[in-house]
Amino acid sequence: MDKTLIFGHKSPDTDTICSALVYADLKNKMGVEAHPARLGEINGETQFALNYFGVEAPAFIEKVDDDVDNVILVDHNEFQQSVDNIADVRITEVIDHHRVSNFETKEPLYFRAEPVGCTATILNKMHKENGVIVSKENAGLLLSAIISDSLLLKSPTCTQSDREAAYELAEIAGVDLETYGLEMLKAGADLSDKSAFDLVTMDAKEFTMGDAKVQIAQVNAVDTSQIYESQDAIEKEMEQIISDKGLELFLFVATDILENDSDVLALGNAKGNVEKAFDVTLDNQNRALLKGVVSRKKQIVTNLTEEFTK
Amino acid sequence: MDKTLIFGHKSPDTDTICSALVYADLKNKMGVEAHPARLGEINGETQFALNYFGVEAPAFIEKVDDDVDNVILVDHNEFQQSVDNIADVRITEVIDHHRVSNFETKEPLYFRAEPVGCTATILNKMHKENGVIVSKENAGLLLSAIISDSLLLKSPTCTQSDREAAYELAEIAGVDLETYGLEMLKAGADLSDKSAFDLVTMDAKEFTMGDAKVQIAQVNAVDTSQIYESQDAIEKEMEQIISDKGLELFLFVATDILENDSDVLALGNAKGNVEKAFDVTLDNQNRALLKGVVSRKKQIVTNLTEEFTK
Repeated sequence: MDKTLIFGHKSPDTDTICSALVYADLKNKMGVEAHPARLGEINGETQFALNYFGVEAPAFIEKVDDDVDNVILVDHNEFQQSVDNIADVRITEVIDHHRVSNFETKEPLYFRAEPVGCTATILNKMHKENGVIVSKENAGLLLSAIISDSLLLKSPTCTQSDREAAYELAEIAGVDLETYGLEMLKAGADLSDKSAFDLVTMDAKEFTMGDAKVQIAQVNAVDTSQIYESQDAIEKEMEQIISDKGLELFLFVATDILENDSDVLALGNAKGNVEKAFDVTLDNQNRALLKGVVSRKKQIVTNLTEEFTK
Repeated sequence: MDKTLIFGHKSPDTDTICSALVYADLKNKMGVEAHPARLGEINGETQFALNYFGVEAPAFIEKVDDDVDNVILVDHNEFQQSVDNIADVRITEVIDHHRVSNFETKEPLYFRAEPVGCTATILNKMHKENGVIVSKENAGLLLSAIISDSLLLKSPTCTQSDREAAYELAEIAGVDLETYGLEMLKAGADLSDKSAFDLVTMDAKEFTMGDAKVQIAQVNAVDTSQIYESQDAIEKEMEQIISDKGLELFLFVATDILENDSDVLALGNAKGNVEKAFDVTLDNQNRALLKGVVSRKKQIVTNLTEEFTK
């Protein structure tokens, strides 16, 4: 039987991990030999969800091995966010909710992107389309992904479909949405054991905007000022990555999960584009408060890309 | 209300035209102001289908005007096959059955590609998903698209889904699949009034393979030898396009709809790749018979891309 590997993006977040796990399980139930995988470390928030619902993390892979026939991408499509040898593998499916960019195949495939807040919302629908009941564990994982991507249904990326899926899944998972959600987000916002390097890499994504390489890292926090107590160390790590990767801009986004604002730090030659894109002025520490901005995808990438391609 | 324009690829074929018409109608029924459009001349096969079912061709456009809010692409995604100002418009949906390549958006969108033989097959499914009955005219258009793309269900691109959709739609359209299908294909294969320029441009698509620009034109015929009576004139037109566009290869594919073979003519610096990709030798007229090859997408683009990216 063909062997299929399913994984999400580098610097995995809760949606990427949970979607890989749940989709592999759905595929297995449909008679496909599918294995979930991950491209990086499990973060504190995701670990909380896995522990809560008693599910093992997927296996870590550095590259796709030769014995894999097919690859399914969840929660991403841009090659620079994927496994290093992505251009050499046969991608048969993509299930995603991001913009489409820097993606290509030689052959037709099943590519399903929907403008919803979370890959898990699409997977919940796919269970119904295929007449498969979502198990309690899988409901818990999908719910955790939605809570994570929508900051407890508060992000502007959150659609009516995400909301409906979340309430439905909370019921199956047997948890109270608000209570469980806040507990999970707080677990992810506990940054006490993180080094400056961890902070700038744990949820970092690289984008091509016009001709520029841009990296955007995001952390959730209950108190963003605590993070910036180590701003010097954070800047040092960012400068190193800017030089290693030849970035035009590295934007570090510290999102306050209670206030739903982001305190950002911008470094790189193109940091002026952050000021223009959000109509703010960076202070003498290269920082600015972006009021009401919590979504990298909908509020940050879109505006910045606009600025870089003007 | 937002104005949405729906169109398929340049050098439109029956699937591109019929899918734009039917999807615009479905969108209208779902309360969206959608208008079908076309990027080129209607071919003889498509005109036969439109006449048979009494449907007007979509309006021709050279570019997307400023008063259009959203664009939906059907039956293609590669920008070089689309409208010239595609990079400046807001693409909100793609419904397609081709490989994904040279496509990108700034924002998340609804992107639905399925590895089936025809866009119309996906649109038939979407009617069901949205609880909309396919009208007799629309069934005729969708059926025509499937017959066209699958050469009357004989192409290797034709899947079980396409077959089932075709029989279902023939029933609604009130036609005999075989009789209507052969009549329609023959209307398309009547090339008696076509100039050499028409032949090499009427169904031509451009691809990027590795670093090379490759154009592949295809015509259906009942007798391919008749086409090559004007080979000198055809070559002259091809040479002109190779030089205008800087192509590495121009492959002209004359497909015999009764024998299900293709008699191809290859010009350009990289014509040797055709020999390698299909394990044939071009004769002293730069031609070769590709036995059993009828699908540009599945049998030609895939093999050639492989060769160009080795």
